[in-house]
Amino acid sequence: MTPTAPARRTGGRSARVRAAVHRAFTELLTERGYGNFAVGDVAERAGVADSSVYRRWGRLDALLMDVLVDRLNTDWPVPDTGGLAGDLREFALNVARGVNGPDALTVLRTVIALLDVEGGEEVRRLFLSQRTGQIEAMLDRARARGERTPEVGDVVDVVMAPMYFRYVFSAGPVDDAYVRKLLERLGVVVF
Amino acid sequence: MTPTAPARRTGGRSARVRAAVHRAFTELLTERGYGNFAVGDVAERAGVADSSVYRRWGRLDALLMDVLVDRLNTDWPVPDTGGLAGDLREFALNVARGVNGPDALTVLRTVIALLDVEGGEEVRRLFLSQRTGQIEAMLDRARARGERTPEVGDVVDVVMAPMYFRYVFSAGPVDDAYVRKLLERLGVVVF
Repeated sequence: MTPTAPARRTGGRSARVRAAVHRAFTELLTERGYGNFAVGDVAERAGVADSSVYRRWGRLDALLMDVLVDRLNTDWPVPDTGGLAGDLREFALNVARGVNGPDALTVLRTVIALLDVEGGEEVRRLFLSQRTGQIEAMLDRARARGERTPEVGDVVDVVMAPMYFRYVFSAGPVDDAYVRKLLERLGVVVF
Repeated sequence: MTPTAPARRTGGRSARVRAAVHRAFTELLTERGYGNFAVGDVAERAGVADSSVYRRWGRLDALLMDVLVDRLNTDWPVPDTGGLAGDLREFALNVARGVNGPDALTVLRTVIALLDVEGGEEVRRLFLSQRTGQIEAMLDRARARGERTPEVGDVVDVVMAPMYFRYVFSAGPVDDAYVRKLLERLGVVVF
């Protein structure tokens, strides 16, 4: 129940159509790749009329952006383990879990492709501000505890960027050992 | 003359068609975004028959992969400045110049989207092996000179990944000052 509960609160049938269309879109994206299916295919898979998809989203890229904004807006608690090392480790492992899995990687890669087109700028800013906001929250708490803290840009460069590079280019596993190595490079002792 | 010369050597009219189709594809990609144009649009823009595009490439994603493989195979000399710091600095600035520019960013983002589909695996491996091969060559020379050298994975994590992250998500400028900061973090003194 949890994943659909917030959407249902904002309106019965319309929310169910949205969830079904999102799911159908993500499935087709994973199966065929972007550019190899049309709005009509999404409608058919979702079991709704073409016209309801066209009316609400119009083009496929608008639908993709809606799927992504939905994912980004899903509540994702900032870890609070009592120490910066533990917080950053949890955070990085959450990112790893969030981006892992075949459909998540397909969505991420497709989103990157569409950052240039209509709606892409909003998604790009939302993505960056969400991630840096979460990192800032952990760093602020660490500073308040009197811990030595890196800058947010250092966390992005040293921890986030290599994780995303590995994912996007399938350049190696993003696992506990890799996260540990990145955090050690940042100068945050984890274990 | 330089950019088309190697293609011309491998065969007159066919090579000219290929160059025109590649150019038309890249223009449409930048103008409209992937998924918002068809093979027929590329043929029209390139001034060739639809059938010659279909016969040679079939689907749009095969054409995109061909454009990318062409770019990756373009000769790109590994810097040889006599010292690792200078080599890595030149290399990073070359990457910056190569990926900079609006059409290059669009191509990169689109390629990332299509890494999942047919042909994507070849491009992904070509991209990674080309980059790591170039880095290995610089590190090998540095080792032979008796310089203290990082591992290739460290160069990827600390220098390459943050540059690509900044590009792909337009998260900040990738300029001389940024490259210097990344190389200092790697422990290679540049200036």
